[in-house]
Amino acid sequence: MSTVRRGNGGGPARSRTGRRAGDSGTREAILDSARQQFAAHGYDGATIRGIAAAAGVDPALVHHFYGTKERLFASAMRLPVVPSEFIAAALADGEIPAGVTVGEHLVATALELWEGAETIGPFQAMLRSAVSSEQAAAMLREFLTEVILAPVATATRGDPGSAPLRAAMVASQMLGLAMARYVLKFGPVVRASRAELVAAIGPAIERYLTGDIS
Amino acid sequence: MSTVRRGNGGGPARSRTGRRAGDSGTREAILDSARQQFAAHGYDGATIRGIAAAAGVDPALVHHFYGTKERLFASAMRLPVVPSEFIAAALADGEIPAGVTVGEHLVATALELWEGAETIGPFQAMLRSAVSSEQAAAMLREFLTEVILAPVATATRGDPGSAPLRAAMVASQMLGLAMARYVLKFGPVVRASRAELVAAIGPAIERYLTGDIS
Repeated sequence: MSTVRRGNGGGPARSRTGRRAGDSGTREAILDSARQQFAAHGYDGATIRGIAAAAGVDPALVHHFYGTKERLFASAMRLPVVPSEFIAAALADGEIPAGVTVGEHLVATALELWEGAETIGPFQAMLRSAVSSEQAAAMLREFLTEVILAPVATATRGDPGSAPLRAAMVASQMLGLAMARYVLKFGPVVRASRAELVAAIGPAIERYLTGDIS
Repeated sequence: MSTVRRGNGGGPARSRTGRRAGDSGTREAILDSARQQFAAHGYDGATIRGIAAAAGVDPALVHHFYGTKERLFASAMRLPVVPSEFIAAALADGEIPAGVTVGEHLVATALELWEGAETIGPFQAMLRSAVSSEQAAAMLREFLTEVILAPVATATRGDPGSAPLRAAMVASQMLGLAMARYVLKFGPVVRASRAELVAAIGPAIERYLTGDIS
């Protein structure tokens, strides 16, 4: 159902009782509570039970509206997609165009997502907040480790022991690209087209995923 | 003379009149003024003349103590080295050990610098401030463009037209590494030894400097 396909919004258009305003108020209370609990306890430490309690609702309602903790996090942070599903979809074999490497496809897909009209604001805000406080950094670190690095690691080849470092190297280059293009706004990185960035960075990502890095 | 070899401190041990305390007070006033002027006007916009005026001293004294604007910036930001000199020295042909690529040497040298006892604090502070405000981002962008990207670009091979993008790609990966290891503290990047990071990232940097990126 559409409730759980997207991080931002979704859910039944109206509850069975037809109380739209009440639903909307409850949703906002849950998202407010989620933002507070994630900030206070980190991504790992926050629980749906605790978020529900702080919002004064039943945990079952939170599950009903948002499904999983990751989906709730994505909604609370106003992400336009559920990251792990987005990455899994982008890395699925059938999704990668012929003649394009996984590394190139990952860069192209990330740029397309980041530069979407509903994404760019929240994405910049998340980058900024992550470096402005230890707490926000911990939250982003835990979130990325759990829901981003894991699916990226499954896309790596070679011995499983190197997968965490490979995924982290991918994350470091993508993070540096995002910082350079959206936050620090380095001239050549801002002026480059997406195709130029894919050509420049794609092979580096592909090597991190599948090449010799030791 | 030793005054201009290092960004942090240096200068004559005492002035000709022997007034050490006065020197020290004047230096602090100049550095305070520099921090304010760089923050207010950016790296490009701030001038030694304006910094001297705000500190109530003669511009010649600022030149005497700090030499160039870059050296003054490095001192004001408490950097332990003058970045352009550090990079130029690291990339000088004679400095690169046999069997080591320029890319590997650049990663190894940067890690060694960043993780020096007197560097790590100011470096983290600079990364954090650069993303916390547009003003600080502009200052860092201008500084990096003028004094970091230019010497890196001279280390690139191939057509000169691609040098700015090559240098910016190097900067994006190094920035991402620094963010991942020191600010967000991704587990695998924190746990990796310097040698492991050099092996993983060095070839990516070498490709940005000299490979086919289009």
